[in-house]
Amino acid sequence: MLLVVETIGIDVGGTKVLGVALDPSCPDVVRAEQRVPTPEGGDGLVDTLLALVVGLSAPAARVGVGVPGLVDRQGTLRMGPHLRRLHDVPLAEVLTQRSGRLTVVDNDANCHAVAEQAAGSARGYDEALVVTLGTGIGAGIITGGRLLRGANGFAGEPGHMVVDPNGPPCPCGKRGCWERFASGTGFARLGRDAAYGGRLDGAVERAGGDPEALRGEHVTAAARAGDAEALTVVGQLAHWIALGLANLVNVLDPAVIVIGGGLVEAADLLLPEVQMRFSDLVMAGDRRPAVPIVAAALGDRAGAIGAALLAAEGG
Amino acid sequence: MLLVVETIGIDVGGTKVLGVALDPSCPDVVRAEQRVPTPEGGDGLVDTLLALVVGLSAPAARVGVGVPGLVDRQGTLRMGPHLRRLHDVPLAEVLTQRSGRLTVVDNDANCHAVAEQAAGSARGYDEALVVTLGTGIGAGIITGGRLLRGANGFAGEPGHMVVDPNGPPCPCGKRGCWERFASGTGFARLGRDAAYGGRLDGAVERAGGDPEALRGEHVTAAARAGDAEALTVVGQLAHWIALGLANLVNVLDPAVIVIGGGLVEAADLLLPEVQMRFSDLVMAGDRRPAVPIVAAALGDRAGAIGAALLAAEGG
Repeated sequence: MLLVVETIGIDVGGTKVLGVALDPSCPDVVRAEQRVPTPEGGDGLVDTLLALVVGLSAPAARVGVGVPGLVDRQGTLRMGPHLRRLHDVPLAEVLTQRSGRLTVVDNDANCHAVAEQAAGSARGYDEALVVTLGTGIGAGIITGGRLLRGANGFAGEPGHMVVDPNGPPCPCGKRGCWERFASGTGFARLGRDAAYGGRLDGAVERAGGDPEALRGEHVTAAARAGDAEALTVVGQLAHWIALGLANLVNVLDPAVIVIGGGLVEAADLLLPEVQMRFSDLVMAGDRRPAVPIVAAALGDRAGAIGAALLAAEGG
Repeated sequence: MLLVVETIGIDVGGTKVLGVALDPSCPDVVRAEQRVPTPEGGDGLVDTLLALVVGLSAPAARVGVGVPGLVDRQGTLRMGPHLRRLHDVPLAEVLTQRSGRLTVVDNDANCHAVAEQAAGSARGYDEALVVTLGTGIGAGIITGGRLLRGANGFAGEPGHMVVDPNGPPCPCGKRGCWERFASGTGFARLGRDAAYGGRLDGAVERAGGDPEALRGEHVTAAARAGDAEALTVVGQLAHWIALGLANLVNVLDPAVIVIGGGLVEAADLLLPEVQMRFSDLVMAGDRRPAVPIVAAALGDRAGAIGAALLAAEGG
């Protein structure tokens, strides 16, 4: 891909907004970057984004922005749980007008997928599934070498796929959505359930003795130290991740699955367990080519890099 | 699409094989058709197919064949529950060589989707999901106006998406696959469960008084006659269909869902119930455009017509 003009990419996360400027002659080299806190609820986010754009780019630049939630083909956030005050704001249009830079807006997991395909773990694959396991779950689907966007731009939201109608309630109003089990939040819940059941003392100790304070990283640390109960909880998490991935592979048949998001920090512990369970859960696992399940390569800059690549492509 | 040569399409079903010859100048007009029983397990199926091809076409014809199961991009059936003796036979190659006609082989639900998009209920849509609810569940996914095939040709198998890990066992080895609930088989199971619970007398009477003989059509007939207990079971089936469709729409974001397969005979009863429940189950149902859920238009010829269209396109 030839970047003819400077491109800026911005990833709006739950706690921080990250902006990167890419080297025009080499799309996977970040020339400059800047981080600021995400304003609560989305209030003032447009001003935050404009300040980042102006700070990072010259007036002729192109800008891409990734936001969590349902973003339509015109770059309007239709639904984003953490950015309610931005619902139905025509973000791409407003940012283009106010910054003077041509701006595209897309779903953050779509941006992750574009970056991992261009310069990360999905490089060279025309059929790839990129799944971000963080606070929630996002996905970007690459098919025929391009993003699958769907009719409205809303494709790739497997976090609210129901995988257990008797499972825990989800803020979306349903029960047993995949992200209740297989996200960072789900990991903490599995940990707390085990802790209240009197297991998982090693991890609870790491959380200061309070099961309510238990997070996935405490379980991971205990598991790395060889704690058998913590390893059991990691296995439960791996099972739920594998179950959802198998559902998706039955539908999409990707050649590779790339896992990004916060849980990727436990990839060394988690992914071998996921891979093992996946083969039993996917349809005809013994009669289809193996699907490698690998960690994302670009870390927490993936979303911003992908947003910049989409801007370069879409202008 | 211009059909320059005669094309034949064949749909291999669980009980019968249907062959059609399309009019070369008008792809949705069936010029001739022939039906024969499906040989048990797939033994002798190649000879059956050859006889149909020779009976229906001239030597220059192109041939398309749709079969249930995982068909790879070379036209080999890798896994088909009802056609075990055909596993790993390079069907497209064998049929091309023995018939002298260029033959393509694809998954039967893919063929359904191609036909419904060309001449049925998905006409005019570039983003469409065609789901066949029969003995099992199949799907054909249209995105960007074309079939989504995936890396191996195995895309579109949502029947073994797990929707309830505590649900009934599935022959695939897992529990709670979507097709345990939302297929014709699932409908009969929901009916039998209700019957053994002492409900559903009106439907059981229609099955000759034997709950074991109860099929979906008995429940449907009772429901059409206004039987409240039968209507409750239809509502349960509608719920499970809607739940799986919502999972798929979260991932694929189609503009339309077309329902084919045996259950389409109850479309008038079923689809309004499915549509109502779907809106509550899909992510952000109140903030996205409605997704119409409509009955397939081409009936039991859809698979054969679609196979012929794929042959015309692929030669």
